[in-house]
Amino acid sequence: MELTDRQKQIIEIVKKQQPISGEKIASILGFARATLRPDFSLLTMSGILQAKPKVGYLINEEHTNSVLVEQIAKQKVEKVMAISVNLTKETSIQDAIIQLFLEDCGSLYVTDNREILGIVSRKDLLKSALGDSDLNAIPVGMVMTKMPNLYTVFSDTLVVDATKLLVTHRVDSLPVLSRSVYEETGKKEVIGKFSKSTASRLLLDIFNKDL
Amino acid sequence: MELTDRQKQIIEIVKKQQPISGEKIASILGFARATLRPDFSLLTMSGILQAKPKVGYLINEEHTNSVLVEQIAKQKVEKVMAISVNLTKETSIQDAIIQLFLEDCGSLYVTDNREILGIVSRKDLLKSALGDSDLNAIPVGMVMTKMPNLYTVFSDTLVVDATKLLVTHRVDSLPVLSRSVYEETGKKEVIGKFSKSTASRLLLDIFNKDL
Repeated sequence: MELTDRQKQIIEIVKKQQPISGEKIASILGFARATLRPDFSLLTMSGILQAKPKVGYLINEEHTNSVLVEQIAKQKVEKVMAISVNLTKETSIQDAIIQLFLEDCGSLYVTDNREILGIVSRKDLLKSALGDSDLNAIPVGMVMTKMPNLYTVFSDTLVVDATKLLVTHRVDSLPVLSRSVYEETGKKEVIGKFSKSTASRLLLDIFNKDL
Repeated sequence: MELTDRQKQIIEIVKKQQPISGEKIASILGFARATLRPDFSLLTMSGILQAKPKVGYLINEEHTNSVLVEQIAKQKVEKVMAISVNLTKETSIQDAIIQLFLEDCGSLYVTDNREILGIVSRKDLLKSALGDSDLNAIPVGMVMTKMPNLYTVFSDTLVVDATKLLVTHRVDSLPVLSRSVYEETGKKEVIGKFSKSTASRLLLDIFNKDL
């Protein structure tokens, strides 16, 4: 649920001065009590505030415990994703490995005109490097994990769902595909990645904001 | 801070019935008001409860917003760490790579009688595999990142601090060292690892518990 700035202000006031009457909140904000009636209705019906007769408004503890975490969890992945490093399927394994070190990343996405074809992980490259073959001669298209055998998310996938996918399937990263391009053209265009590094950073964000 | 069961009960009662008088809480719990005085003092001084004259006890929103997240953040890493895969420094790179695939892990710890000597990452192994040398002939001790050039944590390091280290230094995992063994003998014994996978799982835990 997206709150208006005024609703957020009301929550802040209740946080600091609870229990507090609607009248008093209105006077602090410089509005008539009646003007704020829709805000109070929304905030109590949604469970953010609790209205106690003869006492006033209170923060509904059960609910707001989760507000900050919920804000992060319900964000779209496009808001938090990292930049992906993309290669064409003709790139040699040798060049892919060089890219991996140059960009200091964990997985490389193989694309055709920005459409996702597959992922090459450090382990895929390691397996290839173990063979006797000439790494300059083998294209990454030969060793990548191909679509549709990989987990992807859309730009509007929620952070909570992407995290679930990442942890459940024990993958290092998920290619983020543009929802709008997909809806318009059916093309799975990569616009970023959601990785364990992203998840670790979000955990730190929660800790930092919350402690 | 570790709360007693009685203190936790008081918090639960205040959550549901706030604002509520000390008298009423005492009667619900079947104690005299005086018996609970030390609990009320602790809970208000620590900022968990707020005491408003003529109103009663309230949950201090600012503080308890963070209780769940704080519980996770302030845990010792030994409570959440994963099992590490350890090798001796004589292990060949070839065997290390086999271990990496067998155990499906991201980094291997090199130990001597359980004391940490270094880390071999997928990238270290990849770099070695690129060379012309016989991977059966080179020991991991030659290619590992050696102590003290690696980030480690102790068993009693807080999850929030370990996460900070992981994100700030962009490493995949941190060896967890036993605090008690270190205090007694000065030996840096590895007892587990705190990795980006651990952090991702904790993020999912927070989402699951909180939404």
